Amino acid sequence: MSVIVQADFARKAKELTPSLHHKTILPQRMVDIASDGAAYQGFRVVDIEKAQLPLTLRSGECVILDFGAHNVGYLHFSVNHFGAVKITDAPVMLSFSFGEFPLEIMASKENYHGTLGSGWLQNETKSMVFTPYTGALERRYAFRYLKIERVDTASFPIAIDNLYVDGVSSVSMEEVPLFHIPDKALEQIYKMSLCTLKECSQEVFEDGPKRDRRLWLGDLRLQALSDYVSFKNTALVKRCLYLFAAYRRSDGFVAPCVFPDSPPYIDAKGWHLSDYSLFFSSCLYDYMLYQKDLSLVEELYDTAFLQVQLVMKRMEADGTIKGSDVFIDWCEGLDKSVAFLGVYLYCLHHLRTITEVLGKDSAWIVAEIKEKERILLSYRNKDGFFVTKSGQLSWHSQIWSALSGCLSREENLLLLQKTKEENPKVHIHTPYMMHFYIEALYTMGAKDEAMDVIREFWGELSSAGYDCCPEIFNPENPMESPYNAPEINSTCHAWSCTPIYWIYRYYHEI
Amino acid sequence: MSVIVQADFARKAKELTPSLHHKTILPQRMVDIASDGAAYQGFRVVDIEKAQLPLTLRSGECVILDFGAHNVGYLHFSVNHFGAVKITDAPVMLSFSFGEFPLEIMASKENYHGTLGSGWLQNETKSMVFTPYTGALERRYAFRYLKIERVDTASFPIAIDNLYVDGVSSVSMEEVPLFHIPDKALEQIYKMSLCTLKECSQEVFEDGPKRDRRLWLGDLRLQALSDYVSFKNTALVKRCLYLFAAYRRSDGFVAPCVFPDSPPYIDAKGWHLSDYSLFFSSCLYDYMLYQKDLSLVEELYDTAFLQVQLVMKRMEADGTIKGSDVFIDWCEGLDKSVAFLGVYLYCLHHLRTITEVLGKDSAWIVAEIKEKERILLSYRNKDGFFVTKSGQLSWHSQIWSALSGCLSREENLLLLQKTKEENPKVHIHTPYMMHFYIEALYTMGAKDEAMDVIREFWGELSSAGYDCCPEIFNPENPMESPYNAPEINSTCHAWSCTPIYWIYRYYHEI
Repeated sequence: MSVIVQADFARKAKELTPSLHHKTILPQRMVDIASDGAAYQGFRVVDIEKAQLPLTLRSGECVILDFGAHNVGYLHFSVNHFGAVKITDAPVMLSFSFGEFPLEIMASKENYHGTLGSGWLQNETKSMVFTPYTGALERRYAFRYLKIERVDTASFPIAIDNLYVDGVSSVSMEEVPLFHIPDKALEQIYKMSLCTLKECSQEVFEDGPKRDRRLWLGDLRLQALSDYVSFKNTALVKRCLYLFAAYRRSDGFVAPCVFPDSPPYIDAKGWHLSDYSLFFSSCLYDYMLYQKDLSLVEELYDTAFLQVQLVMKRMEADGTIKGSDVFIDWCEGLDKSVAFLGVYLYCLHHLRTITEVLGKDSAWIVAEIKEKERILLSYRNKDGFFVTKSGQLSWHSQIWSALSGCLSREENLLLLQKTKEENPKVHIHTPYMMHFYIEALYTMGAKDEAMDVIREFWGELSSAGYDCCPEIFNPENPMESPYNAPEINSTCHAWSCTPIYWIYRYYHEI
Repeated sequence: MSVIVQADFARKAKELTPSLHHKTILPQRMVDIASDGAAYQGFRVVDIEKAQLPLTLRSGECVILDFGAHNVGYLHFSVNHFGAVKITDAPVMLSFSFGEFPLEIMASKENYHGTLGSGWLQNETKSMVFTPYTGALERRYAFRYLKIERVDTASFPIAIDNLYVDGVSSVSMEEVPLFHIPDKALEQIYKMSLCTLKECSQEVFEDGPKRDRRLWLGDLRLQALSDYVSFKNTALVKRCLYLFAAYRRSDGFVAPCVFPDSPPYIDAKGWHLSDYSLFFSSCLYDYMLYQKDLSLVEELYDTAFLQVQLVMKRMEADGTIKGSDVFIDWCEGLDKSVAFLGVYLYCLHHLRTITEVLGKDSAWIVAEIKEKERILLSYRNKDGFFVTKSGQLSWHSQIWSALSGCLSREENLLLLQKTKEENPKVHIHTPYMMHFYIEALYTMGAKDEAMDVIREFWGELSSAGYDCCPEIFNPENPMESPYNAPEINSTCHAWSCTPIYWIYRYYHEI
């Protein structure tokens, strides 16, 4: 399958490329990272002293710097001779290891067995023939910890000086209007979520600045929601929506992910996620709601409309969709059929609203909603739970049914309450799916309970030592990784930043 | 000891910094390097096919490119996806190994046990997050062979394209006036010597463009001599002489070596070679002879004069010099005392000539020559050989005595003839020392024999497969290395380029 490019959208996306803010960030502490079975993921950061430049390094020596918080940027440094020896008569070779978390620094490069390419490990080696040398590493890194090892064999010491990170983001913390959060736990969670969104706000809304550094539609929607109530970097939302509309599969589907390279591109062959394509309508709906601007919605309406049409055509009489091109959550063994039907209805409602606002005919959508609600309700058992044809009772099916609009608010609250009591084994695995659980609770009126969920889940990951919100977090298994290698996990990941949105609403809607 | 900087000389040196010529060089062949006990240094280059871009690489694969000849420059390349897979969803990591000769590529990095810093090994690893990527390696390399290995684990193939070397030199082959060399062996040697000089002619006359990339006075003299009869890049000679005069030890000694960095610097503490300091006079003498320009000689005369004075003060009554700060040759166990006396007299003669040309008083030099000739002759034994106090009879003592001027032309020819017959065990080890043997033969009139020496020594190294003239070459022991690691030897080394000079003179003076 080839790719269609809508040139006017591509041009507009390009014109909206933001200028990045730059901030100089200095290392704060020199630390050691010690093995400790009792510590999270088996490593403990041991503080040594304030980081003082220059750092002296002899052959074989290494130093670990703690920058005090998560950074996204470019490492600059200079290398010079040190002390009485004024001559460096051989090239200096330094090995750099960047880590968002201690395990990432300490994991053996040679024993990497992850399913993702090892190029995501943030390691680089650089040689400098003469000193004084002043330069930078070309690659952008996302990290808090930096290990520098002297790997050449020359006997002279060297001094590493003027070391700093040129931190980049399309937003700055100063842009966020402050508001009082009396609950200290929520305040802490709000701050780490804000940091996560900032770090992921680059030339596109990246899913993670360490990895994969791409624009995913599912992530974008959550980032945009959080952004509307914080940085208000709306031009970037607009740019990202243009990107999705500009580069599409030749069958018309919006791709789940755009590679924000120059030129941007999508994988028309391999990847397709029907739920992500449907969320294009939700993105437009949110944009309209928060931006009070109909022009973009009008411009991209056809693209949103087409997504629903394409999915509709693929649906079987029982509401299931052909193939397995649905995300929902990373959850092994999850039967996604019922949850997907919920997503479909959820997005249909968004499409219906924008259709009506634009003065277009929504009768067919209303009919489609009615028809699919009927099918969804057919999966409800005598206990009121939604169960798939295969007999699976999952959190996901209940949450998406609650969000589908097929039940009343009271029924939804009861369903969510019963789900909590039943606690199905097929559980939420990602902060992304957790967002929709919170949405279900919050929008049905269980706002305090929604805050409790945030306090519990995000509070626990804050206690684990993260500065930002990770891609995946399972307190039961700190080494869990969707890629068979926890060191490659992303611990600053956009789809877990939505406490920004919920905490904002909680304190502004009371 | 501190460093004195003569600012006007430093400024003039800086002003003479040349603009480099740039030449795009493409890889010629794809090759394999096979272990072969019968081949030179145990490796044989096996031709595979013409190098065709793009090169396809999968994880773990590698390719070896032969650029057809020695290059000095910067590697540029682009990386893109390949074939049906349009997406590279993880960073690509490439490992580059550059080699002037096959052994350098094949030697294990982990087992390096050389006495020089391993940073001289020409290896670099680079990761590229997105494709298409277009970039370059920052370090300048000297090489003919390039091995590229894909070291990330991602499953997609990549295409390396637009790969070329931006070759740099302050001279271009087109600048050398051609002349007919009827002897094919000498013609071949002349060409490889010319290539050597070109590759070493950068922003200074480097000793070797791979390693150490510095300006050495002993090398400079031979490079300048060869340059006067070929590229005529005299501004660079001038710049280098200013550099030596500008940055000196606080005791007044010219350093043996200037690090051509920005700013240039010398090692005032560790390094001093009296023979190299004395050659400053010889450099000025040659400059005067070939450039017919007295202004620079006049300007730098005091510096030359001071070198002789400083050495003179350190000499004992028997003509030996305190300490061991003399080079002569890399030859373990060599007693350098007599050879150094020869160097001293040789340089005194040069200083005397320029002193007289400048109309200054040379009486003290004439007296000093007479006195030191008397001492040198006292080391001559009944067979006419020059033997050190320790009883050592070396090639070096005979050659430098022949060049000292203490004997007549006929006596010198006889001495050289007898030395050849006697063939002392303490033999010439470097092409640098070989130059002075050739000078002794040639200037005493044994021009054909001088050409025979060139044909034999340089012919043999050409047969070994070198493109340029190496720093060291011992046909008896191909693995000989002054640094305990043949892979770190420099095989494009300025001090072995003087066949340019001798072959030119041979065909122009007949």
